[in-house]
Amino acid sequence: MPDSLPTHDDVRHAAERIRPVATVTPLIESALLNEELGGRLLVKCEMLQKTGSFKFRGAYNRIAMIPEASRKDGVVAFSSGNHAQGVAAAARLLGVDACIIMPKDAPQTKIDNTRAYGAEVVLYDRFGESREEIGARLARERGSTLVKPYDDPGIIAGQGTIGLEIAAQSKAMGVTPDAVLTACSGGGLVTGVALGLAGEMPKVDVYSVEPVGLDDMARSLASGKLERNAADARSICDALMAPTPGDITFAIARQRVRGGLAVSDAEVRKAMALAFRHLKIVCEPGGAVGVAAVMTGKMPIKGRTVVVVASGGNVDPALFREALAA
Amino acid sequence: MPDSLPTHDDVRHAAERIRPVATVTPLIESALLNEELGGRLLVKCEMLQKTGSFKFRGAYNRIAMIPEASRKDGVVAFSSGNHAQGVAAAARLLGVDACIIMPKDAPQTKIDNTRAYGAEVVLYDRFGESREEIGARLARERGSTLVKPYDDPGIIAGQGTIGLEIAAQSKAMGVTPDAVLTACSGGGLVTGVALGLAGEMPKVDVYSVEPVGLDDMARSLASGKLERNAADARSICDALMAPTPGDITFAIARQRVRGGLAVSDAEVRKAMALAFRHLKIVCEPGGAVGVAAVMTGKMPIKGRTVVVVASGGNVDPALFREALAA
Repeated sequence: MPDSLPTHDDVRHAAERIRPVATVTPLIESALLNEELGGRLLVKCEMLQKTGSFKFRGAYNRIAMIPEASRKDGVVAFSSGNHAQGVAAAARLLGVDACIIMPKDAPQTKIDNTRAYGAEVVLYDRFGESREEIGARLARERGSTLVKPYDDPGIIAGQGTIGLEIAAQSKAMGVTPDAVLTACSGGGLVTGVALGLAGEMPKVDVYSVEPVGLDDMARSLASGKLERNAADARSICDALMAPTPGDITFAIARQRVRGGLAVSDAEVRKAMALAFRHLKIVCEPGGAVGVAAVMTGKMPIKGRTVVVVASGGNVDPALFREALAA
Repeated sequence: MPDSLPTHDDVRHAAERIRPVATVTPLIESALLNEELGGRLLVKCEMLQKTGSFKFRGAYNRIAMIPEASRKDGVVAFSSGNHAQGVAAAARLLGVDACIIMPKDAPQTKIDNTRAYGAEVVLYDRFGESREEIGARLARERGSTLVKPYDDPGIIAGQGTIGLEIAAQSKAMGVTPDAVLTACSGGGLVTGVALGLAGEMPKVDVYSVEPVGLDDMARSLASGKLERNAADARSICDALMAPTPGDITFAIARQRVRGGLAVSDAEVRKAMALAFRHLKIVCEPGGAVGVAAVMTGKMPIKGRTVVVVASGGNVDPALFREALAA
């Protein structure tokens, strides 16, 4: 068990920090889709967040927590995608230099976007080098703060602001959700949301949703210990590839996450098309897993209200076209 | 000149009527897109409105204004698309029967959706019959209220609530827009938005954007009298096909709309792809004309702040895929 876990109050403080810069994303629904499902599906539109995913929230909160004296030494992060863009954009807004370690074979658009936000990008060979080692070494050499993708109280609290918004927005709609589903890679989002909801709607069940074969959180919650994914596990959900839950995130998840679900790539493609058709939003594969869990009945919705966090929209046009054709 | 034009106060009353049911759609931007453009582009996401377009606002406001005693006689409307769905959904929420007159060759999904909202659909032959005559006859026979698509003070005031939201949201962001652009078919949206802004940000210039060849509002504003489109004018913007401005909308536009712009179908496709890539939203062709006007430089944005109303997202997957491939 890690020394200290973030709390609901940490999420409240995070909300104050990010308020001036983050988008309060809408919680939307479709009357026709609800009729098809026989229940009420509310979708939290994090693809509309700055940088196209929820990752901006945690990154901004974490970097804003760096003491003034240390900010001049910059931040270091490793990521192949949404965390990279979140850190780069947040660092620029806070006037902090960012160095992002990305795999040489990351999509060129993600490398370009990260550079466009003003970050220095260091490329590494993901088959011959360890990004954790490179990150730790660069942070040491430069005196920079390492901004981890999920296993950090500041990151978790930042993502948790989504939970606060879900509570406020569903209250304003006069509804108490029965369940809240979020995508899960290392667990920063699902545990943050659970913490954010804890002080507001303590009876809501929170679930993680992962790709089949990369459902380490679901299996870890079931077994009560950290489980790892097979090294050869693959999915179109490029944002959900973490091999195992974090120590901090798993400690929170054991207390606050009710269980884990898993969906296939084919189900994810159909969910992306469903979200396009009924909700007019762009979901990347990892952003559509919650919708897929509801659409397939893996999360029952008949006569109930289920909130799904659609976590991001950074998807290549070719993959999106393929999903629409499925 | 029509007898009485709707006012800013009418828009305020409309906002009170629709508040319990309409979505306050977000006003979003992309830092990277802003850098590319050299200015600030704020996009009002009306594809996230109920029924997938702004039309719900006007329809709900208009139907809510029908005296209690007349509501039992229902409403009649004619439309091949977004107005049909807006009226059907609003009527159902208000417990009013709706009969929608749609062309036999309208896309089946739009007919299906309108029926799914509980409306009776009457099909007509758009080459042999007049929808206006059918609508007037049905309204007379049944004692129903005819809910026009744009040339009605209640409709215009309802669409104008978007202007109020733009004013409030841009103030909250600490910015005063230099210009606001909206799509234009019959003119209900652009004049409503101009009225909504009038009491809040009176110095903002409001512009209509239409497809090339269907730019009757632009030409009417330029000549000072009602101009008609050629009968054979075509565009992929199926929502923007009205042949000429309405009497009421044109009277307002002459006072409050600064001018009209026009964009080609090829520009609209590129704008749909741009909105997908940078903003993660689904724009139907008619919903992307404002983005197209900015992207092409037809509306200057360098060093300025321009708000674009992205008016709807009801687009077939095949057409959207085509736009992403362009």
